[in-house]
Amino acid sequence: MNAVPHVVIVGGGFAGLWATRALASAKVRITLLDRGNHHLFQPLLYQVATAGLSAPDIAAPLRHILRGQRNVTVLMGEATVIDKTARRVQLASGDALEYDALMVCTGATHAYFGHDEWAPHAPGLKTLDDALAIRRRVLTAFERAEAERDPARRAALLTFAVVGGGPTGVELAGTLAEIARHTLRKEFRNIDPGSARVLLLEAGPRVLATFPEALSAKAAKQLARLGVEVRTGVPVSSIDAQGFVLGDQRVEACTVLWAAGVAASPLARSLDVPLDRAGRVAVEPDLTLPGHPEIFIAGDLATVKWGERLVPGVAPAAKQMGSYVARVLRARFANQPAPPPFGYKDYGNLATIGRRAAVVDLHGWHFSGYFAWVFWLVAHVFFLIGFRNRVVVLLDWAMAYWTYQRNARIVLGKDTMSR
Amino acid sequence: MNAVPHVVIVGGGFAGLWATRALASAKVRITLLDRGNHHLFQPLLYQVATAGLSAPDIAAPLRHILRGQRNVTVLMGEATVIDKTARRVQLASGDALEYDALMVCTGATHAYFGHDEWAPHAPGLKTLDDALAIRRRVLTAFERAEAERDPARRAALLTFAVVGGGPTGVELAGTLAEIARHTLRKEFRNIDPGSARVLLLEAGPRVLATFPEALSAKAAKQLARLGVEVRTGVPVSSIDAQGFVLGDQRVEACTVLWAAGVAASPLARSLDVPLDRAGRVAVEPDLTLPGHPEIFIAGDLATVKWGERLVPGVAPAAKQMGSYVARVLRARFANQPAPPPFGYKDYGNLATIGRRAAVVDLHGWHFSGYFAWVFWLVAHVFFLIGFRNRVVVLLDWAMAYWTYQRNARIVLGKDTMSR
Repeated sequence: MNAVPHVVIVGGGFAGLWATRALASAKVRITLLDRGNHHLFQPLLYQVATAGLSAPDIAAPLRHILRGQRNVTVLMGEATVIDKTARRVQLASGDALEYDALMVCTGATHAYFGHDEWAPHAPGLKTLDDALAIRRRVLTAFERAEAERDPARRAALLTFAVVGGGPTGVELAGTLAEIARHTLRKEFRNIDPGSARVLLLEAGPRVLATFPEALSAKAAKQLARLGVEVRTGVPVSSIDAQGFVLGDQRVEACTVLWAAGVAASPLARSLDVPLDRAGRVAVEPDLTLPGHPEIFIAGDLATVKWGERLVPGVAPAAKQMGSYVARVLRARFANQPAPPPFGYKDYGNLATIGRRAAVVDLHGWHFSGYFAWVFWLVAHVFFLIGFRNRVVVLLDWAMAYWTYQRNARIVLGKDTMSR
Repeated sequence: MNAVPHVVIVGGGFAGLWATRALASAKVRITLLDRGNHHLFQPLLYQVATAGLSAPDIAAPLRHILRGQRNVTVLMGEATVIDKTARRVQLASGDALEYDALMVCTGATHAYFGHDEWAPHAPGLKTLDDALAIRRRVLTAFERAEAERDPARRAALLTFAVVGGGPTGVELAGTLAEIARHTLRKEFRNIDPGSARVLLLEAGPRVLATFPEALSAKAAKQLARLGVEVRTGVPVSSIDAQGFVLGDQRVEACTVLWAAGVAASPLARSLDVPLDRAGRVAVEPDLTLPGHPEIFIAGDLATVKWGERLVPGVAPAAKQMGSYVARVLRARFANQPAPPPFGYKDYGNLATIGRRAAVVDLHGWHFSGYFAWVFWLVAHVFFLIGFRNRVVVLLDWAMAYWTYQRNARIVLGKDTMSR
C-alpha cells in the first residue's frame, strides 16, 4: 500500500488552491479536482461580463500554477457523489478517487429563492461562461435596439436591471451605466445609448448591506451620479422574458441580471448532513464535518461562526480557510497537536462602484470616491495571479480610464437562452 | 425621397470594412451589416485556437472602428435573401434593407468535400467561436488523457491530426507540436505531453502548395523539426469520433481539425447566378455581378481572374477588392468615368510554422527560418487594428517567446459536439 496519505481536494477556487499550496512541503499525495481547467480570480469576473477584460486575463490553468509542486496531481472532472463510508469520491466520468482526507470547497451557485423559472431570464455571474453570456446579452441588447423601430420595444431593449444590491450588483450596475453613458457614445446612429436606463433593485433597506450605513449612503449617491436608478426596500416579485415586476410596478426590460441569491454547490447534498437554507454545511470549529474529522468543508460551501455573525463569503475568507485546513492536516499527519480552531481575520471590505468610485471599510477607517477606487484597483491587481495578467489588466484599465473604451466588447457564442 | 444613394455592405471582414472606410468622404449613406459585432483579424485566428491570444486581442467592434464615420450605420444581423429585382436584402429578423448599390462580401466557410458527416468530428477555423471550440477540444484532450488509464485510449487522446497543408493547417500543426513539446512540459503527472503525436495530412504532393517548391520543402523540414509528422500525397477517406482513415491506414485520434476545404458563404445562392464548385461567384472585371452593375461581390466570395490563375483568398486581396469597389462607386455617384478593371497587386506570401519558423515569398525573394518568422510577426502585428491590441499581442508573444507559455489556456463553454 501507499504509505503517503492521499488528500483529495474538490474545487480549485481560493480555498482549494490555497490549501494545495500550503501543503507543498507536506508528505502527502494531493489530487486537486476541478470541473474547469482554471483557477478564476472571481473578484474581477464582473469586468469580463462588462467587456472590460478578456476571460484569460483573470484566469490561469490550475496545472500551470501548480506545475512545480510535485506532490499534486490536477484533474479536470466533476465529483458527483461523496461516499463517506468507503472514503471515496465518485466522478462523472465513472472513475472514483479514494481518500485519506477530503476537502470539499466547490463554492456557491445562483439561487432564485424558489423561482427557478426566473433563471433563463436573469442570468447570474459565477463562472467565466456566465460572464461571457452576460456580456453577449448586454452588447446584443444595444445592437437590437439600434435595429428596432418600435419605440416601446426599443425602450425595453435599453432598460437594464440588476437584481441584488451587494458588491456584485453594485459593480455590474455602475459599469453598465458607464458603458451606456461613455463607452458607446457616438457609436450608434438610431439610438442614444446614453438614454439607457440602468436599475439596481435591492429588496433590503440599503445597498452594500454588509458595509457601515454611511458607506451604503455614499455608494447610493455615487451610483446615482453614474446614472443608476437605485430602488431599495421593494422585492422583485416576478421576472419574465419581457421584464419584471417590482412591488406592484411592471417594468419592461430585456436584460435582467441576477446578483441576489447564492446557494451552495449541490455536491454538499451527497454528504448526507443537515444543510442551512442556502445549502451550506455547518462545520466544526476546525472546519471538519461533524463526526468526520477526515472531511473538511471550506470556502463558500461552509457555514462558519464568526462571533455573532458568519464568516462572509469573500475571497480572503476562503483563502484563510484553505490555509487553515492545510495547517490541520500537516499537524495531523506529523502527529503533532491540532492547531486552535479557525479564526477569521477581517482585513476590511472593499466594493467598487464604477469609474473613480468605490467604498472602502478598513476596521473603522472608511473612505469613498476616487482614492477608494485607486485603493480597490491596486489591491485587486496585486492579488491577481500571474505577472502577465497583472500587466495586461493594468494596461486595459489604463486604456479604459483615458479613452473610456472597453477592450473586450466582442460577442462570443450564440444566446441559447430565452432571448 | 432620400437623394443620397444607399449602399448596403453585407459582411464586415477585410473587403467590407475597407470598402466602407474608402467611402468615408463619398456622398452616400452606408449600412454595414454583419452577423457578429466585430471585425476579425483572421490571420491570427489560429493563435486564439491554440491558446496564445484571447479573442478580444484580434477583434474590434465594427461600430467602434467606424464611430467617427458619420455616413455609416452598423447593424448586427443576418442577411438571408437578396432580391435583385426589388433591390432589397431580407434579414433574418424580418426587416429588409433597400439599396441603390449592394456589396456582398460574406466570405467563406468550411467545406467537407461532400462529407458533411465529418463536420462534428473535424471542426474548422473561420470564426472566434470556432477558435474557442478548437481550443476547448485540444486542451480537454490533454486533460482527459491525464485521467485515462487505458493505454490505447490514452494514445488516441494524445493524437492530433490537422487535415489540410495550407497556411492554416501548417500554423495549427506547428503550434500544436509546440504546445505538446514545450508549453505543457512538467504540468502533467500521469502523461508526458511531449509524447503526443501531431500529424499534418495533405492530399496533394506538398504542403503550402501556393508557395515555390523550395519553400514548401523548407516548411516540411521545419515542421518535422518541431515534431510534426507530415503526410502528403494521400487523401483522408473517412473521419469519425475515434479517428480517421488515411489511404488504407486507420489512425485512432480523438482530435482532428479541419483546414482543408472552404466553400463560399451560402448567401451567394440567393443571387441566382451560376456558382463555381466552391460556391463562389464569377464576377465581371469591375467585380460586379453579370447583368447587375449595382451589385458587387468581393473577398473570398468572388472568383476573380488573375492572369492564368485566380486572385487568392487572402486578406490583402480582400482589402484591395474593398477599396476598388469604393473607387467604382465614388466615380459612379460623381458621374465620372469608371476606373480600369480590378487588378490584384501581389505583395508576396507569408506563412508561419511555429516558434522561430516561417517561410516568406516576396516576388522571388525567398527566405525561411528565424528571420522569416520575425518578418511575419512584425507584419501581422503592424496590420492588427487598434493600438491596445498591438501592445497586448506583442506582450503576449514576448512572454510566450521567453517562457514558452500561452496565456489563454482557458477552457470556455461546454463541448456540445460529438466528443
